[in-house]
Formats: sequence, C-alpha cells, structure tokens
Amino acid sequence: MPESTEGKVISCKAAVAWEAQKPLSIETIEVAPPKAHEVRVMDPEGMFPSILGHEGAGIVESVGEGVTGFKPGDHVIPLFVPQCKECDFCKHPKTNLCQKIRIQQGRGYMPDGTSRFTCKGKELKHYMGTSTFSEYTVVADISLCKINPSAPLNTVCLLGCGISTGYGATVNTCKVEKGATVAVWGMGTVGLAVVMGAKVAGAKQIVGIDMIDEKLEVAKAFGVTHTVNPKTTDLGGKKLQEWLVENFNGGFDFTFDCTGNVGAMRQALESAHKGWGESCIIGVAAAGEEISTRPFQLVTGRVWKGTAFGGWKSVDSVPKLVDEYMNKKIQLDDFVTHRAEFDDINNAFDMIHHGKGLRTVLTVKDPSKL
Amino acid sequence: MPESTEGKVISCKAAVAWEAQKPLSIETIEVAPPKAHEVRVMDPEGMFPSILGHEGAGIVESVGEGVTGFKPGDHVIPLFVPQCKECDFCKHPKTNLCQKIRIQQGRGYMPDGTSRFTCKGKELKHYMGTSTFSEYTVVADISLCKINPSAPLNTVCLLGCGISTGYGATVNTCKVEKGATVAVWGMGTVGLAVVMGAKVAGAKQIVGIDMIDEKLEVAKAFGVTHTVNPKTTDLGGKKLQEWLVENFNGGFDFTFDCTGNVGAMRQALESAHKGWGESCIIGVAAAGEEISTRPFQLVTGRVWKGTAFGGWKSVDSVPKLVDEYMNKKIQLDDFVTHRAEFDDINNAFDMIHHGKGLRTVLTVKDPSKL
Repeated sequence: MPESTEGKVISCKAAVAWEAQKPLSIETIEVAPPKAHEVRVMDPEGMFPSILGHEGAGIVESVGEGVTGFKPGDHVIPLFVPQCKECDFCKHPKTNLCQKIRIQQGRGYMPDGTSRFTCKGKELKHYMGTSTFSEYTVVADISLCKINPSAPLNTVCLLGCGISTGYGATVNTCKVEKGATVAVWGMGTVGLAVVMGAKVAGAKQIVGIDMIDEKLEVAKAFGVTHTVNPKTTDLGGKKLQEWLVENFNGGFDFTFDCTGNVGAMRQALESAHKGWGESCIIGVAAAGEEISTRPFQLVTGRVWKGTAFGGWKSVDSVPKLVDEYMNKKIQLDDFVTHRAEFDDINNAFDMIHHGKGLRTVLTVKDPSKL
Repeated sequence: MPESTEGKVISCKAAVAWEAQKPLSIETIEVAPPKAHEVRVMDPEGMFPSILGHEGAGIVESVGEGVTGFKPGDHVIPLFVPQCKECDFCKHPKTNLCQKIRIQQGRGYMPDGTSRFTCKGKELKHYMGTSTFSEYTVVADISLCKINPSAPLNTVCLLGCGISTGYGATVNTCKVEKGATVAVWGMGTVGLAVVMGAKVAGAKQIVGIDMIDEKLEVAKAFGVTHTVNPKTTDLGGKKLQEWLVENFNGGFDFTFDCTGNVGAMRQALESAHKGWGESCIIGVAAAGEEISTRPFQLVTGRVWKGTAFGGWKSVDSVPKLVDEYMNKKIQLDDFVTHRAEFDDINNAFDMIHHGKGLRTVLTVKDPSKL
C-alpha cells in the first residue's frame, strides 16, 4: 500500500463536464477529504463545470467525521437515491425517494452546500450525489452501501441505476405476477432489465418493442417471447396500441415505457388491458414534455404509474441485489457489452448515441497504486 | 292484486327521450314481456328515441324463460354494470367491468339485440341496460340484484350508481387507509359519497373543493375537515395544485376528481403527495377531452387511476351496500334533497342544471294498482 491519502487532498483523473453539449474532458482534479458524514470512494470507474456519472462501484479510501457504517477498504456502490432512514419518505412503505439531501444534491453540492472537487483552480459541481466519472469521489454516507467484497466491482457497478431500475419496476412498482402478460417499449439496458424481471416473476408472455431490429434480436436472448418493430410491422393503418390490443388478447397485464418518449408512454398506457392493466413510466422525458390520454382509459380500469430507481430503498436493497447476482437469481454479465479504459469515456458515449451495445464499463488502474 | 300482467304487453308511463337536447316527454309506452334470461321490473322510475335512467329500485313483475335467481315480488336494484360471473372480467380480481352484454347494451338493446319498448308505434331504445325512467322496465337477469325487502326502495335506489361509485372509489379502488389525508374535487353526490367513504375509512383530513360555497357548506355536514373554493381563495398567483401542496403538507395521500373536468383531474393528480399519492378519476369527461401532466409526476411516485361504479362487482356487492345502509354503516338519507312525482322529471333535471340539491327521488303510484 502506498502512503495513506486519508485527510489529504487527492489529485486524480476525472472526466470533467466543463460545458453542456461538449465532450467530457479528462482532467487532473483535486478531491478534498470527506467532511462529517461523508465518504471518499476510489473509482475502480446538471450543472457545469461538473463531474458526471451515477453508475459505479469502488472502495472506500477514507471517511469523514461521524461516519460509522463504513471504513477504508469497504467495497461500496454509490447511490444517487440516498436512504437516510429518518425522513417521512424513508419511513413510508410506498416510496424510496429519500428527501434528506435532495435540495443540495439537486444544486450539485454535498449536503453542507459545498463541493469537494476543484480543477484548474475552479470549483467543480457534484452530480446526482455520486459523480462516478472520477478516480476518487466523495459521497454522503447515506448515499452509499457496503456490498459483498467478493463481488466483481466492474460488473456490479451496473446495479447503481439502470438494471436495478428496470428490475425493480417489475418486482416492486408493478408486482408482476406469475402467468402475467407484459409489453416493454425500448430494448436498451433498462428495458432488458424489465424483461429480466418479468421472466424472474414468471410472466408467460413478454413482448419487446423497439425501432431497431438489432436490439430486438438481443432482446430474444434476454427472454422476450415476441418482438414488434413498429417501423416495419404492417399495422393495417391502425395506431400501434390498437394493433397490439387486437393482436394480443385485449392488451397486456403490465406495460413499461423505457424510452423517455411521451408518445411511447401513451401507447404503453393504452395497450394495457381494460379493467386491470397497469402501465409504468420508467424513461425520463425531455424537459417540458407532457403525457396525455383520454380519462376514459383510466375510468375503465387502467392504472398509470412510474418508478424511480425501481422503488428500491437503496441502502437496504442494493447489497441484496448484489447477492442475487452472486446467487445467479439475476444476471448482469450480458448487459456489459463493452469494457474500456477510463480515458475512452467519450468513445463510450458515442456508442450510446449511435444505439450500439448496452453498457460500457470503464475501469481505471487501481488508483491506490497511481 | 289485479289480474296478472305476466307474459302480457304492459302499457305504462315512461319519460321518453325522443331527441338529444330536448326535455324528456312523459308518454304511455308498451313494454314487452321479458324473454329468456330477462326480468321485467316495476319502477316505483345514448340513443334516441330511448328511455333514460340508471339509478332506480323496484319490484319484479315477471321473469323470462331461464331466470332462476328472481321471482315476481322480489325487491331489486337494476345494475348498469352487470355481473355474469363467467367472463374474463368477472373472473378477474382487479375489475368489476363485466363485458358479457356490453356491445348490445352500448347499442341500446337487450342482450339478444332487440328492444322491449315501443311508443306511438316506434321502437324505443334501452339505456345503460336499465332504463329506469319508466314505470316498468326489462333488464337482463345479470343486470339485477335482489335486496333486503325491508329496505325502502325510494332511498336505496340511490345505490344504483353515484353513491356506490364514490364510496367504492375510497374503499375498493384506492383503499384509503386510517389516518390518510384526502382531497375531493366536486361536492355533488359522488364527491360527497367519497367524503363519506373517506370518513368510514378513518381519514384524518378530508378537504372538499368546489366553486359553489353553498355546496361546501353542505359538505361540512358530510364530514369534510377543510373546504376550498378556488374562485374565492387567495392562491397568491399560484396554481391551485401548487397552493394545495404548500398548504397541506406536501399534498394528499389520496385525491379524487368528481367533476368530469379535465383541468380538475390534472389538479387532483398534481396535488397527490410525491412518493405515494394516488389520484382517482371518477367524473366522466366530455367526449374527446384529454388529461395531461408531466411524466415526472408519475416517475416521482404518484399513481393515476380511475373507477367505474366504484369497483363493486355489482350483483355481489349492491345487496351488501343495502345492508350497510340498514345497519347505519353508510347513510343515504341526506343525499335525498328532493322527492317528486314521476311527472315532474324535467323539473328535477332543471335543478341539477342549476346546481341545486343532490338527488331528487322520483316515485310513481304503485304501478300494480294502476
């Protein structure tokens, strides 16, 4: 082990977002030591300038005053939805949206309203309370969970958002039942995690919907029983939802939007079965966009809901999801289609923009050996 | 008893809707005997020309072939939502929307595709499978339930729609919990039935919202703890939903729209509490109107649903609701603000149009003595 970094400012590499709409810039930044109730994490992975990233895993480098749940060397996953276990939301059985540090997190700061990052003499903002695009990051101790140390960090890092979200939408938010029928809009990582969850729940029919045939092929390996490409399917002049209701026995018990497209969200709701179909919005729409439908759709029994981080109470649940992976109840490996060095981060983004692959896991050399 | 009318065509008075937008016309009509699986009911009360009306109660006059559940003299309530106990919907635990006779009912006919009503040589259509604005009507045997014969028909007739709907929205559709906070848009009969249900469920706060102060005064007697008239309250330039969220602890556990106004439906959804608030649409909107919101409202935990006939499986439930009234668990009397002779039906409609009173119960002389 090199000399301890505890209590010292660390210089390390991070992908800095200096401005919106520009590629990330790999820079050497300074990361301040954790203050009270904060934890500094080594990455083995809003507002500007900032350090983006919210899916990651790492090892605790040092802890601030008052931290009792973590010690250096713990294997951890940062959580963009914290769990303080004290606020009205944490105490409520129906939600996972801890509000304890929401305002400062939304402003790009640690709970005390300050940043731990600087670069070229400028303060950098935190992002979603996690900022995982850095070799070292500092997070609040309520935004972190300790996991099984034998789990591979460069795979379970995926549990920080997308896969947990899609999986949780099926088992927590909608409680998909054995024998249910399911349709999923968008065959990216989140949609495929919904497919995985529907399969774990015992759904008898899982329809995958996407405009890219390549993605529909991948979806088959994840367990969809039918695929629909609305661009190339002859809908006979009908709206997609009308065609689905006619061709799939009146519609589905559960539908999920994983696209962020408000038109798809409406299709998903209106493809839910009259009387009992539930539709869940997972995708994040562009600012200002709205969803619409005729109220009769709800009066005749459809339910419209949404999910954030799949309804998981984060600190309690993510370590269990890691265990489910280790026990092979859920799988993560097939979601990792690419691995790259941290410096290649902008190439990884290019692939996402071109609809290629699922997740690229970025790894750094062991920062403790830098 | 006069000579039996069983098997004979009956001439009686009915309020005929000859055309849309015109007052109903009290006419002498002919009612054919019930055919197989149909029941003719005496009223002690779409499409045109037709006999409207769907809240009523009466006594079985005669039954058609194959009817085993009813006999002349039974006290009954006609059900615009039938319960066949055989279709996929009846067998599904999450819905009450029996589809067995939906198509013919929607067309204004008995399940065999014909009408039992004529007037001045013209066929009259049925309405909602019930046509209670007639001294005699014929309904399918799955659209009828037998009730406690000691219950007053001229009061429990209200259980045919509005009150059952509002009450069921709270106990079935939303399962309002003890200690919950509730807000209700529209203080008409349905809204007040929601208030009654919320009170029965043990809600700790019930906010009644209406634009007519007179209705808000009535609501206090039904159990609302707070009233809001958006027309006369100083909202400080905010939208109603923003004002409610700020002034009522982040919003409500459950909100209900009983107005049919799509703007109110949006207010109700957006006044539900982040994380766990549920909003239920009960009001029926005008044709073609749509509801809208930002998808973020759902992603952050609000649930948007609706109800038809309060989720009650009709044949099984309405007799129990009659018993709940007889046992004073629910009350109906305060909903009857007016009583009138059947011939005054158009005056009763005028009162509704002017926002006066709740329900006018129309009674006829005992038709068996005519």
